[in-house]
Amino acid sequence: MSGVGIWFVGARGSVATTTTVGLLAIRSRLAGHTGMVSELPEVAAAGLPALDGVVIGGHEVAEGTLGKRAEELSAGGVFPPALATVLAGDLAAADERIRPGVVAGQGTQRSAADRVEAELRAFRDEHGLDRVVVVDVSSTEPPAGDVAALATLAQLEAALDAGEAPLPGSSLYAYAAFRAGCSYVAFTPSPGPRVPALAELALERGVPWAGSDAKTGETLVKTVLGPMFAMRALKVRSWSSVNLLGGGDGQTLADPDNAASKIATKANGLESILGHPVDGPLHIDYVPDLGDWKTAWDLVSFEGFLGTRMSMQFTWSGCDSSLAAPLVLDLVRLVARAHELGEAGPMPQLGFFFKDPVGSDVHALSTQWDALVAWCDRAGRGAE
Amino acid sequence: MSGVGIWFVGARGSVATTTTVGLLAIRSRLAGHTGMVSELPEVAAAGLPALDGVVIGGHEVAEGTLGKRAEELSAGGVFPPALATVLAGDLAAADERIRPGVVAGQGTQRSAADRVEAELRAFRDEHGLDRVVVVDVSSTEPPAGDVAALATLAQLEAALDAGEAPLPGSSLYAYAAFRAGCSYVAFTPSPGPRVPALAELALERGVPWAGSDAKTGETLVKTVLGPMFAMRALKVRSWSSVNLLGGGDGQTLADPDNAASKIATKANGLESILGHPVDGPLHIDYVPDLGDWKTAWDLVSFEGFLGTRMSMQFTWSGCDSSLAAPLVLDLVRLVARAHELGEAGPMPQLGFFFKDPVGSDVHALSTQWDALVAWCDRAGRGAE
Amino acid sequence: MSGVGIWFVGARGSVATTTTVGLLAIRSRLAGHTGMVSELPEVAAAGLPALDGVVIGGHEVAEGTLGKRAEELSAGGVFPPALATVLAGDLAAADERIRPGVVAGQGTQRSAADRVEAELRAFRDEHGLDRVVVVDVSSTEPPAGDVAALATLAQLEAALDAGEAPLPGSSLYAYAAFRAGCSYVAFTPSPGPRVPALAELALERGVPWAGSDAKTGETLVKTVLGPMFAMRALKVRSWSSVNLLGGGDGQTLADPDNAASKIATKANGLESILGHPVDGPLHIDYVPDLGDWKTAWDLVSFEGFLGTRMSMQFTWSGCDSSLAAPLVLDLVRLVARAHELGEAGPMPQLGFFFKDPVGSDVHALSTQWDALVAWCDRAGRGAE
Amino acid sequence: MSGVGIWFVGARGSVATTTTVGLLAIRSRLAGHTGMVSELPEVAAAGLPALDGVVIGGHEVAEGTLGKRAEELSAGGVFPPALATVLAGDLAAADERIRPGVVAGQGTQRSAADRVEAELRAFRDEHGLDRVVVVDVSSTEPPAGDVAALATLAQLEAALDAGEAPLPGSSLYAYAAFRAGCSYVAFTPSPGPRVPALAELALERGVPWAGSDAKTGETLVKTVLGPMFAMRALKVRSWSSVNLLGGGDGQTLADPDNAASKIATKANGLESILGHPVDGPLHIDYVPDLGDWKTAWDLVSFEGFLGTRMSMQFTWSGCDSSLAAPLVLDLVRLVARAHELGEAGPMPQLGFFFKDPVGSDVHALSTQWDALVAWCDRAGRGAE
Repeated sequence: MSGVGIWFVGARGSVATTTTVGLLAIRSRLAGHTGMVSELPEVAAAGLPALDGVVIGGHEVAEGTLGKRAEELSAGGVFPPALATVLAGDLAAADERIRPGVVAGQGTQRSAADRVEAELRAFRDEHGLDRVVVVDVSSTEPPAGDVAALATLAQLEAALDAGEAPLPGSSLYAYAAFRAGCSYVAFTPSPGPRVPALAELALERGVPWAGSDAKTGETLVKTVLGPMFAMRALKVRSWSSVNLLGGGDGQTLADPDNAASKIATKANGLESILGHPVDGPLHIDYVPDLGDWKTAWDLVSFEGFLGTRMSMQFTWSGCDSSLAAPLVLDLVRLVARAHELGEAGPMPQLGFFFKDPVGSDVHALSTQWDALVAWCDRAGRGAE
Repeated sequence: MSGVGIWFVGARGSVATTTTVGLLAIRSRLAGHTGMVSELPEVAAAGLPALDGVVIGGHEVAEGTLGKRAEELSAGGVFPPALATVLAGDLAAADERIRPGVVAGQGTQRSAADRVEAELRAFRDEHGLDRVVVVDVSSTEPPAGDVAALATLAQLEAALDAGEAPLPGSSLYAYAAFRAGCSYVAFTPSPGPRVPALAELALERGVPWAGSDAKTGETLVKTVLGPMFAMRALKVRSWSSVNLLGGGDGQTLADPDNAASKIATKANGLESILGHPVDGPLHIDYVPDLGDWKTAWDLVSFEGFLGTRMSMQFTWSGCDSSLAAPLVLDLVRLVARAHELGEAGPMPQLGFFFKDPVGSDVHALSTQWDALVAWCDRAGRGAE
Repeated sequence: MSGVGIWFVGARGSVATTTTVGLLAIRSRLAGHTGMVSELPEVAAAGLPALDGVVIGGHEVAEGTLGKRAEELSAGGVFPPALATVLAGDLAAADERIRPGVVAGQGTQRSAADRVEAELRAFRDEHGLDRVVVVDVSSTEPPAGDVAALATLAQLEAALDAGEAPLPGSSLYAYAAFRAGCSYVAFTPSPGPRVPALAELALERGVPWAGSDAKTGETLVKTVLGPMFAMRALKVRSWSSVNLLGGGDGQTLADPDNAASKIATKANGLESILGHPVDGPLHIDYVPDLGDWKTAWDLVSFEGFLGTRMSMQFTWSGCDSSLAAPLVLDLVRLVARAHELGEAGPMPQLGFFFKDPVGSDVHALSTQWDALVAWCDRAGRGAE
Repeated sequence: MSGVGIWFVGARGSVATTTTVGLLAIRSRLAGHTGMVSELPEVAAAGLPALDGVVIGGHEVAEGTLGKRAEELSAGGVFPPALATVLAGDLAAADERIRPGVVAGQGTQRSAADRVEAELRAFRDEHGLDRVVVVDVSSTEPPAGDVAALATLAQLEAALDAGEAPLPGSSLYAYAAFRAGCSYVAFTPSPGPRVPALAELALERGVPWAGSDAKTGETLVKTVLGPMFAMRALKVRSWSSVNLLGGGDGQTLADPDNAASKIATKANGLESILGHPVDGPLHIDYVPDLGDWKTAWDLVSFEGFLGTRMSMQFTWSGCDSSLAAPLVLDLVRLVARAHELGEAGPMPQLGFFFKDPVGSDVHALSTQWDALVAWCDRAGRGAE
């Protein structure tokens, strides 16, 4: 298999820029595969597309260039400044493949979707790509309400034909992607493909999709510590979480409406893992000073034998873009492989990567890992 | 199945006392099963012996009474003071079943072993027990050297017959246990049954045994966090660990010779989980002020995509005796069940409970859990 | 000097109960003076009233008894359960001196204030006390608005005469206290005496008062770490604070209106110490599971030479009532001593004890200590 | 006042290199004064020498160049890589002023001291400097034993004349410095001028000196938290400290003999501040992975009112060279100013900067600050 395209929604954001720099760096042998799950033997066994043939394009509403963003990120310690310098030419070339993003309210959603669909088809054709994976790494949107026009594909098409605008921004991209025969990765908690009408469309068009909300840091830790308490029959009494982050994501999440998506998916998993609700606040705070770095602190209060009260706390100091970028490459390869194998619809076996895994209520990381490896094993044999 | 006996080596130590208080409290409906893995449905499925029929006895070299020790432990917050008061009568009765422990150098090892064996047989007969599990919770001993007399059972018997004393203290108990047809749990890192001659003896006498060194706190956490880094292809660069503890265990471990056993088994797992050696100190410090509580701090420095350096730290504040006691009850039930099913020799499927699992190099907690559950499932069907 | 009375507003709350138990325990030689600043030689030098002559009374709106509260607090680890048992008789006697608190809306504020004043006078007379210090340890109230009737004493009296209710609850007690010739300690962030009309009244009646909002934990630490950064010319870029607490105080502060007072006084000091505003959230969360204990976590991000970014974090695990109670005794002794010396009005030299020191913008703990010691030295000489 | 020279012992080490880069950066207006205590108004009031006239030279035993070291340090995050690039020419010029350090055993100590003295005089003359401050930032040496030849200056001179080698390496430099009329800063815990014979020599030659062992991180924090507990009458029961560091300092301290100096001076202060010995380990571990950064973790267990046990922990993540370099500039300016004012001998008023302040047993940072500011105030008036 060769020729996979990545089409970013939010192509000059922190995650997309870091992914682009990383892909170029790996191809130029300037960097290794640390952080890439798809390079572990159990996952590589699926017969994944090579990184060498990957082409990156995307939509972006913000000004600026990939090169400029790369400089900013490297100044913030996301990757070595030398990379931004050495790869400047390649980044400029990638920048040429970025198209203006959809701006809400400019024209109808029907016409915007048509435009996006056409651009996706053009990207695939121009670069002779076997398939394209659309990856949403744009700013988090509020949860989608319960809108009638999103309930079935027929209702959605009728609303769009009538000039209505029922789709959240991220869902408009998913709609266009599916119509263009592209698979999709909902990397953020935004609604994207997770509305009934689009689930229907993906099946109709025979494209797989994965989501939502990549688990990169504090939530990742929760999904191994939570099962530990459960397996040892220790009773978690409260679990308090604080996430301090600067950068674009932090700024977006400073708006409580947008944060609602994030907080909902973060809180999700713990209750499911422990089997009971757990007390304790969950804060996400914007601290501009922290830049692209996140510090999370969690305090777990638990009860052991004979009611003895104990506690555990941890501090996670991570760079979100750096943790996210390799997962983007992993997901693109896995979803493209599923597409190649003819799979369609949501991919619960990729729950390993997500805070809010579509089609699954499993949150324990090791159980998710087992499901991922089992699928990769089947995929590897299916390719022979 | 009914009538299981627990015979403690170190019967008035913190762990044995807490286990005894806990068993009595559960039987009197004064406490629940928090912390007991054997009460989780996946493990209970093995068809484990009921707690109601369990009788506790043991050896002890130290002065004092169970009741006095229970008061001290409850004053230190290990369990509610009310329990020690209410259970005073039962504890006094249990104290009656404690025999003087073996003191090195008083008589030959042959005669000491004969005495212990006779006491174990007497305990089983007197209380009409189906089987007895010997559990070593006494102070940690140094690692056993490479002694010729421990290489085969024949050599060991010859040495004992010759009036020699080749056995570490814990191994002498294991020798006597196996000869008495008792199974054995090596709850500490002391050598116990882990010398070739005794492995031979256990098979000859058809008794199962489990070990070594229960993982109760900081190491437990390592065996879920380590796999998390591995599954995410993040490169752990250093992992520094500090354990501060008061209490008897801390005091014993203040002697570097004794600590050697502990440190070796603690360091063990991480390298195996990550697949490469990891830099960083591992300290165990005696801080009398901390009493029966332990505070451990770990700093993990790791590298992600494009070489970005990140870190995680955690602090574990736990009560070791409280964490250990329910595992003693779990192990006794599981080993007794294996004995009932006719299994003999080391039980690698109980690696879930140990820092240095016999017969296994698996340290990842969730993989150990899967192995435990699989065995319990088989055991449950085997009983039908 | 002898015969000082403490009159608690909130006499069966956690702080008042712990103070009462502590005073009785010290007098019965069941406890020492740990945590009492007034027993340090530099402070004792002021010639403070002896604890032996102190009598405790107070107002309380809640049901229950001191004995019952003491049992609950000791079960939560605030002090040894044995104290509650041994002191049961003394606590019952103290309970007899507690009067029903003022309930908003029942009668006019004028009549309520008259009743409180009369009760204070009766308490002083009945026990032959030289002076009485009223200490507000009741639940935190919202900040007082900018109310015309509180601007001058004349306006206040007129409003009360007119049957109006301009006084916040805590201020009503301060009004009655001053009229009864009692000094006052604003131990919480509630408005209490900190309205212009009451400041006027205190001077008129010749009584001293101190406040507000005792600094017992996380803020205390801030007022030594903040100056450290300042003295070393290190630039604090952000300071994020999370306070998790159960207990009554936590519950009250779960109401954002009430928390407003607390958060304002907590945030206060840091900016003053560092000389510039500092970014970062300040959370106070109610986590019932934590009971009377508080865990606070702070992350300080700072910049050093050549712009290098560094960080420091700390976790404070304290028992608020236990930290507060000895300060109550300290403040009572110091305010009573000032009263004896004829001082009147706000006491800025007691800023050492408070998050929001009246009449002072000094927050650095060591500078406050110097001011306290200087006053004590003068007071000691003044007494000769 | 103008023309001050800094002569480093260890001129291409991390601290000396960072100081040199910093001085050049400040003079080129590429960096500000963050971290420089001598720029705070209270300290600047002393009338300190301007940075513009400072010339740097030194001794060094290691190979390499300042430029190369600056690149390495900037790659490790100690300062921005751009600084090393922009200042390459200035660093090369500074490198020309570095002379080969004294190697133990090559020639007599007498001849080595003569050579160093001559080089110091040549440096001062060549650059027309008013005075030169020798600053020892070389690797930590073991404590000096109780050697007869170091007891008096006469004995020392006799021993040197006799071809003996009684001086620790750092003390040889101090000897030469004093003979050359240079003042001296003992920035490390090495013995340096802290032997009786050299104290005598400094007075004889009329030169001031300061030391020992700059407090830059974890110990700095201890000297504000310790007094906090003391001022609040809270009883510290144990204080456990772990310091993890890579870099050259870490490597040197991995040798227990060298660490002895460091651990002694670190442990020093706390006992003096609290007034009683405090239990708990103090570890310094070499973790190469951490490079020039240090992570320290401290756990403080303390007791409050009625014996209630509480705890505090902190983690300090700092860059040692970055914290040390501005203090070098501060000390040079302060010692040069004292020299200008005719002061001679040890300077206890600079205890603010040191873990083991010469001539003082004050360790509380705020008390040290007060002493520093008082001296600066006098120095400022003395200059008029």
